[in-house]
Amino acid sequence: MAKRLVCFLAVAVLATTCHGWGGGAGDVVSAAALSFMDRLRQMIPVGDGDYCDSWRVGVEANNVRGWTTAPRKCDNYVENYMRGHHYRRDSKVVVDEAMAYAEGLVLSGDAAADANATWVFDVDETALSHVKFYKKHGFGYHRTDEPAFMEWLIAGRASALPNTVTLYKKLLLLGIKIVFLSDRPDTPELRNATATNLIKEGFDCWDELILRSGNSTATGSVVEYKSGERKKLEEEKGMVIVGNIGDQWSDLLGSPEGERTFKLPNPAYYIDNYMRAGAAVATTASSSSS
Amino acid sequence: MAKRLVCFLAVAVLATTCHGWGGGAGDVVSAAALSFMDRLRQMIPVGDGDYCDSWRVGVEANNVRGWTTAPRKCDNYVENYMRGHHYRRDSKVVVDEAMAYAEGLVLSGDAAADANATWVFDVDETALSHVKFYKKHGFGYHRTDEPAFMEWLIAGRASALPNTVTLYKKLLLLGIKIVFLSDRPDTPELRNATATNLIKEGFDCWDELILRSGNSTATGSVVEYKSGERKKLEEEKGMVIVGNIGDQWSDLLGSPEGERTFKLPNPAYYIDNYMRAGAAVATTASSSSS
Repeated sequence: MAKRLVCFLAVAVLATTCHGWGGGAGDVVSAAALSFMDRLRQMIPVGDGDYCDSWRVGVEANNVRGWTTAPRKCDNYVENYMRGHHYRRDSKVVVDEAMAYAEGLVLSGDAAADANATWVFDVDETALSHVKFYKKHGFGYHRTDEPAFMEWLIAGRASALPNTVTLYKKLLLLGIKIVFLSDRPDTPELRNATATNLIKEGFDCWDELILRSGNSTATGSVVEYKSGERKKLEEEKGMVIVGNIGDQWSDLLGSPEGERTFKLPNPAYYIDNYMRAGAAVATTASSSSS
Repeated sequence: MAKRLVCFLAVAVLATTCHGWGGGAGDVVSAAALSFMDRLRQMIPVGDGDYCDSWRVGVEANNVRGWTTAPRKCDNYVENYMRGHHYRRDSKVVVDEAMAYAEGLVLSGDAAADANATWVFDVDETALSHVKFYKKHGFGYHRTDEPAFMEWLIAGRASALPNTVTLYKKLLLLGIKIVFLSDRPDTPELRNATATNLIKEGFDCWDELILRSGNSTATGSVVEYKSGERKKLEEEKGMVIVGNIGDQWSDLLGSPEGERTFKLPNPAYYIDNYMRAGAAVATTASSSSS
């Protein structure tokens, strides 16, 4: 009931598209939800953990680019990271910063800006986690043109990233408009699956759910596509993008970036900033290895 | 002799300002140079190491901004990090990426671009380390208007960051022009001290050593100042900035950024991207704490 009230208030304030609260999130990737196997896994030493730790920080700071997979010797490290507490605590710091920033914004008193204040969320590994898929198919492999991954997306069984849900709910309460902007191809089947999965996992109010429309094999960088969509939101819809959160630098780069950007961690795969060939969502750039 | 030959070749190719090789770097902050005290320090558990580790990654990914000091509970963590192997290995990953990128560049075969190819280095915590100063005065405190820090800069006893020296020498060999671009105030005394310290530590060829000229109390963001100087390098001197490396996001943001940017780690202090008041080099923004 409380959840419905929040959504109702958000609708009243924002004229947002809202959907029934699924109340789902049954398999949420939460700090408390580590499985017995994942807890065991955290105790296994990984190959060159120190190197892999530094490599991961290099990825997060946008120093290490254009890789197709994590360095071979970091396979176990990346899997442990994504399945354990480390990923969760790194994500929490990002979201805590975002929430503190958002709370300050709404107190700015600039009514015109506040009314159109908009937050852009990426979808994959930002709102929804595919860790369950990677557990079966291996970490560091993510292409929407891969049949197995496409089947997974259409099945709509991805789990919410719990820290992102927390941020999302805070933003709704603050009266900030929500846009989901994804590089998933905009087919009817995938649009429906994306919307259903988001709603089931608690993300059930938004102003826009933007997928990559038109010919899904069109070339063009992710940065160009996403920054172009953000520009349309600002110029055609009068939105003021106060925040933009994603797990890839290609979610965040390219004008207009948004007044603040937030980079969630993801050492499992890299989406290229500059080129996009075919329907691949993931990079086809050269591999970084060591 | 070999070093002199490298410098001579660089001069011949670049008409670069070169200076005698100090051969110094006697107190280089190298992986092998951890003191007994620093090695002991690495064994002491820090307060909330997990949180501080995630906070540091948040800083590196430009999520955590505008802080005056590290969170209080991370004081020991930051000191251990900067004095230990962790800082060194994180820096090495960044520099390895930069070197691989630079090697690829020179093989591009674009003679016109290659001849003007330029790399911009920040100075403090990028070329020169002030860890020795912080050991005495505390980590996370860095203002050029502080008498003690100014005395330290003028004494010119900062050590080279060894990974940066490696990159610098590689770039000289590749025929890439070198620019040092610092927010240090451009007083005759400080210019002389900066040049002398750089030379002593092995950075003895450059095309430009740019310090903040004019009224050192002028307002204006570090991003505006540094991007403005980069623009002048490109538009007035025909340089093509192929690389830009610094320890602060304010070294790297603002058009033209350079074709690739590299963020070296620094959890000890934050230089504000957006504002600059007085002669303070370090931030005066609000503190991030937890």
